Amino acid sequence: MGDPAGIGPEIIARSMASPGIKGLAIFVVIADSAVMRKALDDEGVVFSAVPAGSEMVVLAEDRVNVVAVPTNSGRIEPGKPTELGARCALECLDAAADIIKTNKEILRKAIVTAPVDKSRISGIYPGFVGHTEYFQELFSAKMITMVLIGEHLRVVPVTRHIPLKDVPGALSVKLIRDTLAQVVDNRCMICGKQDARIGIAALNPHGGEGGKFGGEEVDIIIPAVNEAKKTYPYMVGPIPADTIFYKAMKKELDIVVSMYHDQCLGPFKMVDFASGVNMTLGLGCVRTSPDHGTAFDIAGKGIASSSSMESAIQLAVKAIS
Amino acid sequence: MGDPAGIGPEIIARSMASPGIKGLAIFVVIADSAVMRKALDDEGVVFSAVPAGSEMVVLAEDRVNVVAVPTNSGRIEPGKPTELGARCALECLDAAADIIKTNKEILRKAIVTAPVDKSRISGIYPGFVGHTEYFQELFSAKMITMVLIGEHLRVVPVTRHIPLKDVPGALSVKLIRDTLAQVVDNRCMICGKQDARIGIAALNPHGGEGGKFGGEEVDIIIPAVNEAKKTYPYMVGPIPADTIFYKAMKKELDIVVSMYHDQCLGPFKMVDFASGVNMTLGLGCVRTSPDHGTAFDIAGKGIASSSSMESAIQLAVKAIS
Repeated sequence: MGDPAGIGPEIIARSMASPGIKGLAIFVVIADSAVMRKALDDEGVVFSAVPAGSEMVVLAEDRVNVVAVPTNSGRIEPGKPTELGARCALECLDAAADIIKTNKEILRKAIVTAPVDKSRISGIYPGFVGHTEYFQELFSAKMITMVLIGEHLRVVPVTRHIPLKDVPGALSVKLIRDTLAQVVDNRCMICGKQDARIGIAALNPHGGEGGKFGGEEVDIIIPAVNEAKKTYPYMVGPIPADTIFYKAMKKELDIVVSMYHDQCLGPFKMVDFASGVNMTLGLGCVRTSPDHGTAFDIAGKGIASSSSMESAIQLAVKAIS
Repeated sequence: MGDPAGIGPEIIARSMASPGIKGLAIFVVIADSAVMRKALDDEGVVFSAVPAGSEMVVLAEDRVNVVAVPTNSGRIEPGKPTELGARCALECLDAAADIIKTNKEILRKAIVTAPVDKSRISGIYPGFVGHTEYFQELFSAKMITMVLIGEHLRVVPVTRHIPLKDVPGALSVKLIRDTLAQVVDNRCMICGKQDARIGIAALNPHGGEGGKFGGEEVDIIIPAVNEAKKTYPYMVGPIPADTIFYKAMKKELDIVVSMYHDQCLGPFKMVDFASGVNMTLGLGCVRTSPDHGTAFDIAGKGIASSSSMESAIQLAVKAIS
């Protein structure tokens, strides 16, 4: 559900009512039950309450299954974030991971998350950075990769939520090579192509110009790309970061692997602002989410667009089909 | 002229023949004369040779004035870059600066440059980084600012051609404040608005999230913006770099001041790839150039687009009008 005071509940309900989503899979919504019931009622979505706990033995196929989390309170108001809501959002994530892990018989499983209030969650759970890293912990995943999938671009940051000054030091041949391997393994899920062309961005302006503006291309990126090419040849890079995304938009590349967060997020949001989907690789189950925030300012007003959430659900279903 | 073996000569000639440019100003083309004559002849442009030397006493108003540089050779072939060509390009820059500096009676003056082969020039002139920094030296300019002007975005990098790892250390309250002051002084030239809304990008992912992903926002950028606001209030920032360019594209901001090269060039080229103009502030004279390279691969084939060069000329003329 994400933060119960954000747009999460309503975009989930709107997605469940959407002709493009209805019947696509068996849906289990993990939520504050009062908030979620209201949102589903508002959209005329039929649902059943499923008892809390990790065993999902009886699931309805013809309606939405709602699992209430312990903090379930009914004291949440749209647009008014509280610590209680942040706690509730965090419990939804825990419950989702728990359900996935303990219901091993459900082989094709995926989690779709709604936006959370990171700063409030980090007040309860210090060190909380985002869904991606939190799930990495919950699933004890050694190596995970974040992918942003839009209509025009598909981008992968090698480093994520770290200060810019720590980026050059965090890059290594191993990290780039392992990220490329995870992208290669999941290329069909990311872009639907067995022979996806993967471009790798440089770190420095103009790709370092042979070491004049920085040495990481020569010392780290080129060796990593050369190693990765041995098992998957359709790779090119490093390409200067000011042109690689343009090339991808012009369909010269299918996936761009970039060195840091803003390097790919800036260009990505220029062309896929509203429609982006965030996907995590390496968890052992599929996880997607819309690429926008809680939007507390418009929550509960019935104007939030569910298009990114619907894309996230469709992508998750496609990935496990 | 830029590199004589690149697309410079032909896009200059094509611009001189263009109805949007012809008669707009008195034009002096500083070039390898054989290469330039051929290019102008190909486009049917009428021109006169002007004697070399820095005193531009007799200039034709009804035709293009061509000044030949000393390396003038006639041994240049399109698409075949040579050291001789690089030397010629460098001499064109020297001659342009010299003409501007010694003809003080010509008050309204501007330089438009064509693309050069930076790596070959740096073989002749070690430390050559680009036009911007070279002109800073020629004009003994204390502080210069590079601006990229496109149809959709107008962006300014606070730091330019330095390794990414050196960016955080290069940022200071003074540098950001001085850059903002230069942008404010030239805001009408940049975007035609007296009350231009200037957005300032953050350095770290999500704007550092209050110090969690880096402290430069709190320590450097916010104090600099607060200081700059005292003299010019229409400023907002720091704004996370993954959304600020989208906001500018949606016309919520007129100019974006960013912290480093790829931070603004990536998003800029997504939407203004072919039409961008590069402008240098702080030289004491206007200087613009198209925002593309020498394109040796298509030079001399008659297919290079002169649209960015024409925009650069138009912007320069407008700036001195």
